[in-house]
Amino acid sequence: MVTAARYYPQLLSIVGNALRFLPAFVAMRKLLTEGYVGELQVCDARVYGPSLLDQSYGWTCEELMGGGGLHTVGSALVDLLSHLVGTRAQKVHGLLRTFVRQNGAIRGIRRVTSDDFCFFQMLMGGTGSGSTARTGSVCCTVTLNFNMPGAFVHEVMVVGSEGRLIARGTELYGQRNGGDREELLLGDTGGAGPEVTGLPLPHLRGLGSMVTALKHAFQAQKERRSWVPGPIAMAATFEDGLYVQTVVEAVKRSSRSGEWESVEVMTQEPDPNQNLCEALQRNKV
Amino acid sequence: MVTAARYYPQLLSIVGNALRFLPAFVAMRKLLTEGYVGELQVCDARVYGPSLLDQSYGWTCEELMGGGGLHTVGSALVDLLSHLVGTRAQKVHGLLRTFVRQNGAIRGIRRVTSDDFCFFQMLMGGTGSGSTARTGSVCCTVTLNFNMPGAFVHEVMVVGSEGRLIARGTELYGQRNGGDREELLLGDTGGAGPEVTGLPLPHLRGLGSMVTALKHAFQAQKERRSWVPGPIAMAATFEDGLYVQTVVEAVKRSSRSGEWESVEVMTQEPDPNQNLCEALQRNKV
Repeated sequence: MVTAARYYPQLLSIVGNALRFLPAFVAMRKLLTEGYVGELQVCDARVYGPSLLDQSYGWTCEELMGGGGLHTVGSALVDLLSHLVGTRAQKVHGLLRTFVRQNGAIRGIRRVTSDDFCFFQMLMGGTGSGSTARTGSVCCTVTLNFNMPGAFVHEVMVVGSEGRLIARGTELYGQRNGGDREELLLGDTGGAGPEVTGLPLPHLRGLGSMVTALKHAFQAQKERRSWVPGPIAMAATFEDGLYVQTVVEAVKRSSRSGEWESVEVMTQEPDPNQNLCEALQRNKV
Repeated sequence: MVTAARYYPQLLSIVGNALRFLPAFVAMRKLLTEGYVGELQVCDARVYGPSLLDQSYGWTCEELMGGGGLHTVGSALVDLLSHLVGTRAQKVHGLLRTFVRQNGAIRGIRRVTSDDFCFFQMLMGGTGSGSTARTGSVCCTVTLNFNMPGAFVHEVMVVGSEGRLIARGTELYGQRNGGDREELLLGDTGGAGPEVTGLPLPHLRGLGSMVTALKHAFQAQKERRSWVPGPIAMAATFEDGLYVQTVVEAVKRSSRSGEWESVEVMTQEPDPNQNLCEALQRNKV
Protein backbone atom coordinates (compact mmCIF):
# COMPACT_ATOMS: atom_id res chain seq x y z
CA MET A 1 0.00 0.00 0.00
CA VAL A 2 2.90 2.36 0.79
CA THR A 3 4.47 1.61 -2.60
CA ALA A 4 1.14 2.07 -4.34
CA ALA A 5 0.61 5.41 -2.60
CA ARG A 6 4.05 6.58 -3.78
CA TYR A 7 3.42 5.46 -7.37
CA TYR A 8 0.97 8.16 -8.45
CA PRO A 9 1.81 11.35 -6.54
CA GLN A 10 -1.11 12.98 -8.35
CA LEU A 11 -3.52 10.79 -6.43
CA LEU A 12 -4.15 11.99 -2.91
CA SER A 13 -3.26 9.41 -0.26
CA ILE A 14 -3.38 10.37 3.38
CA VAL A 15 -4.11 8.46 6.56
CA GLY A 16 -7.12 9.57 8.58
CA ASN A 17 -5.32 10.47 11.81
CA ALA A 18 -7.57 13.41 12.52
CA LEU A 19 -5.93 14.50 15.79
CA ARG A 20 -3.19 16.27 13.82
CA PHE A 21 -5.86 18.66 12.53
CA LEU A 22 -7.44 19.51 15.88
CA PRO A 23 -6.75 23.23 16.47
CA ALA A 24 -5.41 22.52 19.99
CA PHE A 25 -2.71 20.22 18.59
CA VAL A 26 -1.97 22.52 15.66
CA ALA A 27 -1.34 25.27 18.23
CA MET A 28 0.63 22.90 20.49
CA ARG A 29 2.93 21.92 17.66
CA LYS A 30 3.48 25.57 16.70
CA LEU A 31 4.31 26.51 20.30
CA LEU A 32 6.69 23.56 20.60
CA THR A 33 8.62 24.73 17.52
CA GLU A 34 8.66 28.26 18.91
CA GLY A 35 10.26 26.94 22.10
CA TYR A 36 7.40 27.56 24.56
CA VAL A 37 8.44 24.57 26.72
CA GLY A 38 12.19 24.86 26.08
CA GLU A 39 13.89 21.53 25.54
CA LEU A 40 11.22 18.84 25.40
CA GLN A 41 11.63 16.10 28.02
CA VAL A 42 8.43 14.16 28.63
CA CYS A 43 5.09 13.60 26.88
CA ASP A 44 2.20 12.05 28.71
CA ALA A 45 -1.06 11.09 27.00
CA ARG A 46 -4.07 9.53 28.67
CA VAL A 47 -7.46 8.56 27.36
CA TYR A 48 -10.06 7.17 29.72
CA GLY A 49 -13.57 6.30 28.69
CA PRO A 50 -16.36 3.78 28.42
CA SER A 51 -16.00 0.39 26.73
CA LEU A 52 -15.07 0.40 23.03
CA LEU A 53 -16.94 -2.86 22.40
CA ASP A 54 -19.95 -2.93 20.10
CA GLN A 55 -23.34 -3.93 21.45
CA SER A 56 -23.02 -7.30 19.77
CA TYR A 57 -20.03 -9.52 19.05
CA GLY A 58 -17.88 -8.21 16.21
CA TRP A 59 -14.43 -6.97 15.21
CA THR A 60 -14.20 -4.63 18.20
CA CYS A 61 -13.96 -7.69 20.46
CA GLU A 62 -11.15 -9.32 18.51
CA GLU A 63 -7.56 -8.19 18.76
CA LEU A 64 -6.60 -9.81 15.44
CA MET A 65 -9.34 -7.89 13.64
CA GLY A 66 -8.16 -4.51 14.93
CA GLY A 67 -10.24 -4.17 18.06
CA GLY A 68 -9.08 -2.76 21.37
CA GLY A 69 -7.78 0.47 22.83
CA LEU A 70 -4.28 0.23 21.38
CA HIS A 71 -5.50 -0.19 17.79
CA THR A 72 -8.43 2.19 17.98
CA VAL A 73 -7.13 5.05 20.10
CA GLY A 74 -3.47 4.26 20.83
CA SER A 75 -2.46 4.31 17.16
CA ALA A 76 -3.83 7.85 16.76
CA LEU A 77 -1.76 8.94 19.79
CA VAL A 78 1.40 7.27 18.44
CA ASP A 79 0.92 9.26 15.26
CA LEU A 80 0.13 12.49 17.10
CA LEU A 81 3.13 12.25 19.44
CA SER A 82 5.63 11.70 16.65
CA HIS A 83 4.00 14.60 14.79
CA LEU A 84 4.30 16.86 17.86
CA VAL A 85 7.81 15.78 18.92
CA GLY A 86 9.17 15.69 15.37
CA THR A 87 10.98 12.37 15.82
CA ARG A 88 9.97 8.75 15.94
CA ALA A 89 9.92 6.12 18.64
CA GLN A 90 13.06 4.01 18.77
CA LYS A 91 12.08 1.63 21.55
CA VAL A 92 8.78 0.85 23.20
CA HIS A 93 7.61 -0.99 26.26
CA GLY A 94 3.99 -1.89 26.78
CA LEU A 95 1.40 -3.76 28.75
CA LEU A 96 -2.03 -4.78 27.46
CA ARG A 97 -4.83 -6.24 29.50
CA THR A 98 -8.36 -7.40 28.89
CA PHE A 99 -10.14 -6.96 32.18
CA VAL A 100 -13.65 -7.51 30.84
CA ARG A 101 -13.58 -10.77 28.87
CA GLN A 102 -17.32 -11.34 28.81
CA ASN A 103 -20.37 -9.15 29.37
CA GLY A 104 -24.13 -9.31 28.96
CA ALA A 105 -23.89 -9.42 25.16
CA ILE A 106 -20.64 -11.36 24.72
CA ARG A 107 -20.79 -14.65 26.58
CA GLY A 108 -20.92 -18.41 26.24
CA ILE A 109 -18.03 -19.63 24.10
CA ARG A 110 -17.17 -16.08 23.05
CA ARG A 111 -14.50 -14.04 24.74
CA VAL A 112 -13.11 -10.60 24.18
CA THR A 113 -9.44 -10.71 23.14
CA SER A 114 -8.95 -7.00 22.46
CA ASP A 115 -7.41 -4.83 25.21
CA ASP A 116 -9.47 -2.56 27.44
CA PHE A 117 -6.40 -1.34 29.33
CA CYS A 118 -3.19 -0.43 27.60
CA PHE A 119 -0.16 1.28 28.78
CA PHE A 120 3.03 1.96 26.86
CA GLN A 121 6.18 4.02 26.88
CA MET A 122 8.10 5.22 23.87
CA LEU A 123 11.67 6.48 23.82
CA MET A 124 11.80 8.94 20.99
CA GLY A 125 14.65 10.13 18.83
CA GLY A 126 17.58 8.91 20.88
CA THR A 127 21.05 8.57 19.45
CA GLY A 128 21.94 5.06 20.62
CA SER A 129 20.27 1.75 21.14
CA GLY A 130 21.27 1.04 24.75
CA SER A 131 18.76 1.20 27.57
CA THR A 132 20.59 3.86 29.54
CA ALA A 133 19.67 7.53 29.68
CA ARG A 134 20.53 9.61 26.65
CA THR A 135 20.59 13.36 26.54
CA GLY A 136 18.08 14.89 24.22
CA SER A 137 15.81 11.86 24.08
CA VAL A 138 12.14 12.27 24.93
CA CYS A 139 10.12 9.84 27.08
CA CYS A 140 6.49 9.40 26.09
CA THR A 141 3.97 7.57 28.21
CA VAL A 142 0.49 6.63 27.05
CA THR A 143 -2.25 5.27 29.33
CA LEU A 144 -5.53 4.01 27.91
CA ASN A 145 -8.35 2.72 30.07
CA PHE A 146 -11.74 1.85 28.68
CA ASN A 147 -13.33 0.53 31.83
CA MET A 148 -14.41 4.00 32.90
CA PRO A 149 -18.00 4.75 31.89
CA GLY A 150 -18.90 8.43 31.60
CA ALA A 151 -17.42 11.13 29.43
CA PHE A 152 -14.06 10.56 27.75
CA VAL A 153 -10.98 12.01 29.46
CA HIS A 154 -8.52 12.97 26.74
CA GLU A 155 -5.33 14.62 27.93
CA VAL A 156 -2.00 15.16 26.22
CA MET A 157 0.76 16.89 28.16
CA VAL A 158 4.24 17.89 27.00
CA VAL A 159 6.82 18.96 29.57
CA GLY A 160 10.09 20.71 28.82
CA SER A 161 12.85 22.58 30.56
CA GLU A 162 11.01 25.92 30.38
CA GLY A 163 7.36 25.04 30.76
CA ARG A 164 4.54 22.75 29.78
CA LEU A 165 1.54 22.52 27.48
CA ILE A 166 -1.56 20.48 28.22
CA ALA A 167 -4.39 19.69 25.81
CA ARG A 168 -7.44 18.72 27.84
CA GLY A 169 -10.13 17.53 25.47
CA THR A 170 -10.18 20.16 22.74
CA GLU A 171 -8.71 22.98 24.84
CA LEU A 172 -5.07 23.95 25.17
CA TYR A 173 -3.49 25.15 28.42
CA GLY A 174 0.06 26.21 29.10
CA GLN A 175 2.34 27.23 31.91
CA ARG A 176 5.81 28.70 31.67
CA ASN A 177 8.14 27.95 34.56
CA GLY A 178 8.17 31.58 35.67
CA GLY A 179 4.36 31.96 35.55
CA ASP A 180 2.26 31.65 38.66
CA ARG A 181 -0.64 29.79 37.09
CA GLU A 182 -1.81 27.83 34.07
CA GLU A 183 -3.28 29.90 31.24
CA LEU A 184 -5.92 28.93 28.70
CA LEU A 185 -4.20 29.26 25.33
CA LEU A 186 -6.99 27.99 23.10
CA GLY A 187 -10.62 27.37 24.00
CA ASP A 188 -12.98 24.98 22.30
CA THR A 189 -14.34 26.65 19.19
CA GLY A 190 -16.51 23.84 17.94
CA GLY A 191 -19.86 24.87 19.39
CA ALA A 192 -22.26 22.33 20.84
CA GLY A 193 -22.73 20.04 17.84
CA PRO A 194 -24.25 16.57 17.96
CA GLU A 195 -22.78 14.25 20.55
CA VAL A 196 -21.43 11.10 18.90
CA THR A 197 -21.05 8.30 21.38
CA GLY A 198 -18.09 5.97 21.24
CA LEU A 199 -15.71 8.59 19.86
CA PRO A 200 -13.71 11.02 22.01
CA LEU A 201 -14.56 14.63 21.19
CA PRO A 202 -10.99 15.55 20.08
CA HIS A 203 -11.16 12.86 17.38
CA LEU A 204 -14.56 14.11 16.22
CA ARG A 205 -13.49 17.77 16.11
CA GLY A 206 -10.22 16.81 14.42
CA LEU A 207 -12.13 14.92 11.77
CA GLY A 208 -14.21 18.04 11.08
CA SER A 209 -11.04 20.12 10.70
CA MET A 210 -9.48 17.51 8.43
CA VAL A 211 -12.50 17.39 6.13
CA THR A 212 -12.47 21.20 5.97
CA ALA A 213 -8.76 21.09 5.05
CA LEU A 214 -9.53 18.57 2.31
CA LYS A 215 -12.26 20.87 1.00
CA HIS A 216 -9.79 23.76 0.84
CA ALA A 217 -7.26 21.59 -0.99
CA PHE A 218 -9.72 20.90 -3.78
CA GLN A 219 -11.94 23.97 -3.76
CA ALA A 220 -9.62 26.46 -5.46
CA GLN A 221 -8.81 24.01 -8.25
CA LYS A 222 -10.42 23.85 -11.67
CA GLU A 223 -13.60 21.83 -11.39
CA ARG A 224 -12.22 20.45 -8.13
CA ARG A 225 -10.51 17.64 -10.00
CA SER A 226 -7.01 18.39 -8.78
CA TRP A 227 -5.71 19.60 -5.43
CA VAL A 228 -2.98 21.69 -3.84
CA PRO A 229 -0.91 20.16 -1.04
CA GLY A 230 -0.87 23.26 1.21
CA PRO A 231 -3.99 22.79 3.34
CA ILE A 232 -3.29 19.10 3.97
CA ALA A 233 0.49 19.35 4.32
CA MET A 234 0.27 18.23 7.95
CA ALA A 235 -1.73 15.09 7.19
CA ALA A 236 -0.24 11.69 7.97
CA THR A 237 1.23 9.96 4.91
CA PHE A 238 1.14 6.24 4.23
CA GLU A 239 4.76 6.15 5.45
CA ASP A 240 3.53 7.58 8.75
CA GLY A 241 0.82 4.93 8.75
CA LEU A 242 3.39 2.18 8.34
CA TYR A 243 5.44 3.67 11.18
CA VAL A 244 2.36 3.76 13.45
CA GLN A 245 1.56 0.16 12.61
CA THR A 246 5.14 -0.84 13.38
CA VAL A 247 4.98 0.85 16.78
CA VAL A 248 1.65 -0.81 17.57
CA GLU A 249 3.08 -4.22 16.69
CA ALA A 250 6.17 -3.52 18.82
CA VAL A 251 3.97 -2.59 21.81
CA LYS A 252 2.06 -5.85 21.42
CA ARG A 253 5.33 -7.77 21.14
CA SER A 254 6.62 -6.02 24.26
CA SER A 255 3.49 -6.88 26.21
CA ARG A 256 4.14 -10.54 25.41
CA SER A 257 7.91 -10.53 25.93
CA GLY A 258 7.97 -8.15 28.89
CA GLU A 259 10.96 -6.41 27.33
CA TRP A 260 11.72 -3.20 25.49
CA GLU A 261 11.21 -3.77 21.80
CA SER A 262 12.87 -1.71 19.13
CA VAL A 263 10.81 -0.11 16.39
CA GLU A 264 12.13 -1.11 13.01
CA VAL A 265 10.06 0.12 10.14
CA MET A 266 9.99 -2.28 7.20
CA THR A 267 11.99 -0.91 4.28
CA GLN A 268 11.54 -3.78 1.83
CA GLU A 269 8.26 -5.15 0.64
CA PRO A 270 7.37 -8.42 2.34
CA ASP A 271 7.41 -11.60 0.32
CA PRO A 272 4.07 -11.72 -1.54
CA ASN A 273 4.02 -15.51 -1.21
CA GLN A 274 3.98 -15.29 2.53
CA ASN A 275 0.60 -15.86 4.06
CA LEU A 276 0.18 -12.71 6.14
CA CYS A 277 -2.67 -14.06 8.17
CA GLU A 278 -0.61 -17.09 9.11
CA ALA A 279 2.26 -14.80 10.06
CA LEU A 280 -0.02 -12.79 12.32
CA GLN A 281 -1.23 -15.94 14.00
CA ARG A 282 2.32 -17.14 14.51
CA ASN A 283 3.28 -13.74 15.87
CA LYS A 284 0.56 -14.11 18.47
CA VAL A 285 1.94 -17.38 19.83
CA MET B 1 16.67 -3.29 61.79
CA VAL B 2 13.67 -5.52 61.00
CA THR B 3 14.94 -8.16 63.43
CA ALA B 4 15.63 -5.51 66.07
CA ALA B 5 12.12 -4.09 65.66
CA ARG B 6 10.64 -7.56 66.19
CA TYR B 7 12.75 -8.24 69.26
CA TYR B 8 11.00 -5.97 71.77
CA PRO B 9 7.32 -5.79 70.77
CA GLN B 10 6.83 -3.42 73.71
CA LEU B 11 8.89 -0.80 71.94
CA LEU B 12 6.99 1.04 69.27
CA SER B 13 8.55 0.75 65.81
CA ILE B 14 6.71 2.16 62.81
CA VAL B 15 7.84 3.64 59.52
CA GLY B 16 6.86 7.24 58.84
CA ASN B 17 4.82 6.67 55.70
CA ALA B 18 2.32 9.35 56.57
CA LEU B 19 0.10 8.98 53.49
CA ARG B 20 -1.61 5.97 55.09
CA PHE B 21 -2.99 8.34 57.73
CA LEU B 22 -4.36 10.99 55.37
CA PRO B 23 -8.16 10.96 55.82
CA ALA B 24 -8.70 10.73 52.03
CA PHE B 25 -6.70 7.48 51.87
CA VAL B 26 -8.25 6.12 55.06
CA ALA B 27 -11.65 6.65 53.40
CA MET B 28 -10.42 5.24 50.07
CA ARG B 29 -9.21 2.06 51.75
CA LYS B 30 -12.50 1.66 53.60
CA LEU B 31 -14.52 2.13 50.39
CA LEU B 32 -12.28 -0.36 48.56
CA THR B 33 -12.96 -3.03 51.22
CA GLU B 34 -16.66 -2.21 51.06
CA GLY B 35 -16.61 -2.87 47.29
CA TYR B 36 -17.24 0.67 46.02
CA VAL B 37 -15.20 0.04 42.84
CA GLY B 38 -16.09 -3.65 42.50
CA GLU B 39 -13.14 -5.81 41.50
CA LEU B 40 -10.02 -3.65 41.50
CA GLN B 41 -8.20 -3.53 38.16
CA VAL B 42 -5.89 -0.55 37.85
CA CYS B 43 -4.22 1.98 40.16
CA ASP B 44 -2.65 5.11 38.78
CA ALA B 45 -0.64 7.53 40.89
CA ARG B 46 0.98 10.71 39.70
CA VAL B 47 2.94 13.39 41.50
CA TYR B 48 4.15 16.43 39.59
CA GLY B 49 5.96 19.29 41.19
CA PRO B 50 8.97 21.55 41.41
CA SER B 51 12.54 20.30 41.78
CA LEU B 52 13.31 18.27 44.91
CA LEU B 53 16.93 19.44 44.95
CA ASP B 54 18.21 21.54 47.83
CA GLN B 55 19.50 25.04 47.18
CA SER B 56 23.06 23.83 47.58
CA TYR B 57 24.73 20.52 46.75
CA GLY B 58 23.80 17.75 49.17
CA TRP B 59 22.21 14.33 49.55
CA THR B 60 19.15 15.33 47.49
CA CYS B 61 21.40 15.47 44.41
CA GLU B 62 22.88 12.03 44.93
CA GLU B 63 21.01 8.84 44.10
CA LEU B 64 23.23 6.72 46.36
CA MET B 65 22.46 8.94 49.33
CA GLY B 66 18.69 8.64 48.91
CA GLY B 67 17.96 11.63 46.72
CA GLY B 68 15.52 11.72 43.81
CA GLY B 69 11.82 11.33 43.18
CA LEU B 70 11.73 7.56 43.48
CA HIS B 71 13.34 7.54 46.94
CA THR B 72 11.63 10.62 48.31
CA VAL B 73 8.10 10.39 46.93
CA GLY B 74 7.91 7.08 45.04
CA SER B 75 8.63 4.98 48.13
CA ALA B 76 5.67 6.54 49.97
CA LEU B 77 3.43 5.67 46.99
CA VAL B 78 4.72 2.07 46.85
CA ASP B 79 3.78 1.75 50.50
CA LEU B 80 0.41 3.45 50.04
CA LEU B 81 -0.59 1.34 47.03
CA SER B 82 0.16 -1.97 48.74
CA HIS B 83 -1.76 -0.70 51.78
CA LEU B 84 -4.75 0.25 49.60
CA VAL B 85 -4.72 -2.83 47.36
CA GLY B 86 -3.99 -5.24 50.20
CA THR B 87 -1.35 -7.18 48.26
CA ARG B 88 2.24 -6.63 47.30
CA ALA B 89 4.02 -6.01 44.02
CA GLN B 90 5.33 -9.17 42.40
CA LYS B 91 7.04 -7.64 39.39
CA VAL B 92 8.02 -4.10 38.52
CA HIS B 93 9.19 -2.24 35.47
CA GLY B 94 10.61 1.23 35.68
CA LEU B 95 12.39 4.06 33.99
CA LEU B 96 14.38 6.78 35.76
CA ARG B 97 15.77 9.90 34.20
CA THR B 98 17.75 12.90 35.34
CA PHE B 99 16.82 15.66 32.93
CA VAL B 100 18.41 18.48 34.91
CA ARG B 101 21.99 17.41 35.68
CA GLN B 102 23.30 20.86 36.53
CA ASN B 103 21.71 24.15 37.54
CA GLY B 104 22.73 27.54 38.88
CA ALA B 105 23.81 26.10 42.24
CA ILE B 106 25.09 22.68 41.17
CA ARG B 107 27.72 23.05 38.48
CA GLY B 108 31.37 22.63 37.63
CA ILE B 109 32.53 19.11 38.44
CA ARG B 110 29.28 18.37 40.29
CA ARG B 111 26.36 16.62 38.66
CA VAL B 112 22.96 15.52 39.88
CA THR B 113 22.61 11.73 39.81
CA SER B 114 19.19 11.47 41.48
CA ASP B 115 16.12 11.13 39.24
CA ASP B 116 13.80 14.04 38.46
CA PHE B 117 11.53 11.87 36.29
CA CYS B 118 10.48 8.41 37.30
CA PHE B 119 7.94 6.12 35.97
CA PHE B 120 7.16 2.60 37.07
CA GLN B 121 4.58 -0.14 36.85
CA MET B 122 3.86 -2.76 39.46
CA LEU B 123 1.96 -6.00 38.94
CA MET B 124 0.34 -6.73 42.26
CA GLY B 125 -0.80 -9.96 43.83
CA GLY B 126 -0.80 -12.20 40.79
CA THR B 127 -0.83 -15.96 41.06
CA GLY B 128 1.99 -16.87 38.69
CA SER B 129 5.33 -15.51 37.61
CA GLY B 130 4.84 -15.42 33.82
CA SER B 131 4.46 -12.14 31.98
CA THR B 132 1.04 -12.93 30.56
CA ALA B 133 -2.27 -11.58 31.83
CA ARG B 134 -3.58 -13.13 34.99
CA THR B 135 -7.08 -12.78 36.27
CA GLY B 136 -7.39 -10.95 39.51
CA SER B 137 -4.04 -9.20 39.29
CA VAL B 138 -3.90 -5.42 39.63
CA CYS B 139 -1.76 -3.13 37.45
CA CYS B 140 -0.34 -0.08 39.19
CA THR B 141 1.35 2.77 37.36
CA VAL B 142 3.24 5.58 39.04
CA THR B 143 4.46 8.72 37.27
CA LEU B 144 6.69 11.22 39.05
CA ASN B 145 7.91 14.41 37.42
CA PHE B 146 9.79 17.07 39.32
CA ASN B 147 10.52 19.40 36.45
CA MET B 148 7.18 21.16 36.84
CA PRO B 149 7.46 24.31 38.97
CA GLY B 150 4.27 25.50 40.61
CA ALA B 151 1.98 23.72 43.04
CA PHE B 152 2.29 19.96 43.52
CA VAL B 153 -0.16 17.76 41.59
CA HIS B 154 -0.83 14.69 43.72
CA GLU B 155 -3.37 12.26 42.30
CA VAL B 156 -4.08 8.63 43.14
CA MET B 157 -6.79 6.84 41.17
CA VAL B 158 -8.13 3.31 41.62
CA VAL B 159 -10.34 1.80 38.92
CA GLY B 160 -12.46 -1.30 39.28
CA SER B 161 -15.25 -3.14 37.53
CA GLU B 162 -17.97 -1.07 39.23
CA GLY B 163 -16.50 2.37 39.59
CA ARG B 164 -13.50 4.46 40.54
CA LEU B 165 -12.08 6.53 43.35
CA ILE B 166 -9.72 9.45 42.88
CA ALA B 167 -7.77 11.27 45.58
CA ARG B 168 -6.77 14.68 44.23
CA GLY B 169 -4.47 16.32 46.73
CA THR B 170 -6.21 15.82 50.06
CA GLU B 171 -9.74 15.42 48.63
CA LEU B 172 -11.48 12.20 47.67
CA TYR B 173 -13.78 11.88 44.66
CA GLY B 174 -15.70 8.86 43.43
CA GLN B 175 -17.85 7.73 40.56
CA ARG B 176 -19.89 4.54 40.32
CA ASN B 177 -20.41 3.16 36.82
CA GLY B 178 -24.12 3.92 36.94
CA GLY B 179 -23.67 7.51 38.18
CA ASP B 180 -23.77 10.43 35.81
CA ARG B 181 -21.01 12.45 37.45
CA GLU B 182 -18.13 12.38 39.89
CA GLU B 183 -19.03 13.12 43.51
CA LEU B 184 -16.92 14.69 46.23
CA LEU B 185 -16.71 12.05 48.95
CA LEU B 186 -14.35 13.81 51.34
CA GLY B 187 -13.26 17.45 51.28
CA ASP B 188 -10.09 18.86 52.71
CA THR B 189 -10.56 19.37 56.44
CA GLY B 190 -7.12 20.65 57.27
CA GLY B 191 -7.80 24.38 57.22
CA ALA B 192 -5.35 26.85 55.74
CA GLY B 193 -2.28 26.09 57.86
CA PRO B 194 1.25 27.17 57.07
CA GLU B 195 2.47 26.33 53.59
CA VAL B 196 5.60 24.18 53.72
CA THR B 197 7.51 24.29 50.51
CA GLY B 198 9.15 21.19 49.12
CA LEU B 199 6.58 18.79 50.55
CA PRO B 200 3.31 17.85 48.81
CA LEU B 201 0.29 18.81 50.92
CA PRO B 202 -1.01 15.20 51.26
CA HIS B 203 2.29 14.20 52.93
CA LEU B 204 2.11 17.18 55.28
CA ARG B 205 -1.53 16.56 56.24
CA GLY B 206 -0.85 12.84 56.59
CA LEU B 207 2.02 13.59 58.94
CA GLY B 208 -0.32 15.68 61.09
CA SER B 209 -2.83 12.80 61.26
CA MET B 210 -0.08 10.31 62.09
CA VAL B 211 1.23 12.41 64.95
CA THR B 212 -2.32 12.77 66.28
CA ALA B 213 -2.75 8.98 66.09
CA LEU B 214 0.51 8.54 68.00
CA LYS B 215 -0.77 10.95 70.65
CA HIS B 216 -3.97 8.91 71.02
CA ALA B 217 -1.96 5.68 71.32
CA PHE B 218 -0.07 7.05 74.33
CA GLN B 219 -2.54 9.49 75.86
CA ALA B 220 -4.93 7.08 77.57
CA GLN B 221 -2.06 5.13 79.13
CA LYS B 222 -0.70 5.54 82.61
CA GLU B 223 1.78 8.40 82.60
CA ARG B 224 1.97 7.97 78.83
CA ARG B 225 4.78 5.44 79.22
CA SER B 226 3.03 2.61 77.38
CA TRP B 227 0.78 2.61 74.34
CA VAL B 228 -2.18 0.79 72.80
CA PRO B 229 -1.89 -0.45 69.21
CA GLY B 230 -5.40 0.61 68.12
CA PRO B 231 -4.86 4.17 66.89
CA ILE B 232 -1.71 3.27 64.98
CA ALA B 233 -2.79 -0.14 63.71
CA MET B 234 -2.64 1.07 60.13
CA ALA B 235 0.94 2.36 60.37
CA ALA B 236 3.63 0.82 58.21
CA THR B 237 5.76 -1.73 60.05
CA PHE B 238 9.47 -2.30 59.54
CA GLU B 239 8.49 -5.34 57.43
CA ASP B 240 6.53 -2.95 55.21
CA GLY B 241 9.58 -0.71 55.10
CA LEU B 242 11.76 -3.59 53.93
CA TYR B 243 9.19 -4.44 51.25
CA VAL B 244 9.14 -0.81 50.02
CA GLN B 245 12.93 -0.72 49.90
CA THR B 246 12.93 -3.97 47.92
CA VAL B 247 10.48 -2.55 45.37
CA VAL B 248 12.51 0.65 45.04
CA GLU B 249 15.67 -1.37 44.39
CA ALA B 250 13.81 -3.52 41.84
CA VAL B 251 12.60 -0.41 40.00
CA LYS B 252 16.16 0.90 39.84
CA ARG B 253 17.37 -2.48 38.62
CA SER B 254 14.65 -2.52 35.97
CA SER B 255 15.58 0.95 34.77
CA ARG B 256 19.12 -0.35 34.17
CA SER B 257 18.20 -3.73 32.69
CA GLY B 258 15.14 -2.57 30.73
CA GLU B 259 13.32 -5.69 31.90
CA TRP B 260 10.62 -6.62 34.38
CA GLU B 261 12.25 -7.36 37.71
CA SER B 262 10.68 -9.54 40.33
CA VAL B 263 10.30 -8.29 43.89
CA GLU B 264 11.86 -10.72 46.30
CA VAL B 265 11.88 -9.55 49.86
CA MET B 266 14.92 -10.68 51.83
CA THR B 267 13.97 -13.34 54.37
CA GLN B 268 17.38 -14.03 55.83
CA GLU B 269 19.66 -11.50 57.41
CA PRO B 270 22.48 -10.48 55.09
CA ASP B 271 26.00 -11.55 55.93
CA PRO B 272 27.25 -9.02 58.51
CA ASN B 273 30.75 -9.31 57.07
CA GLN B 274 29.58 -8.03 53.74
CA ASN B 275 30.39 -4.42 53.07
CA LEU B 276 26.96 -3.02 52.28
CA CYS B 277 28.27 0.16 50.76
CA GLU B 278 30.47 -1.84 48.41
CA ALA B 279 27.47 -3.98 47.48
CA LEU B 280 25.45 -0.89 46.63
CA GLN B 281 28.24 0.41 44.44
CA ARG B 282 28.52 -2.91 42.66
CA ASN B 283 24.77 -3.01 42.19
CA LYS B 284 24.98 0.32 40.40
CA VAL B 285 27.46 -0.94 37.78
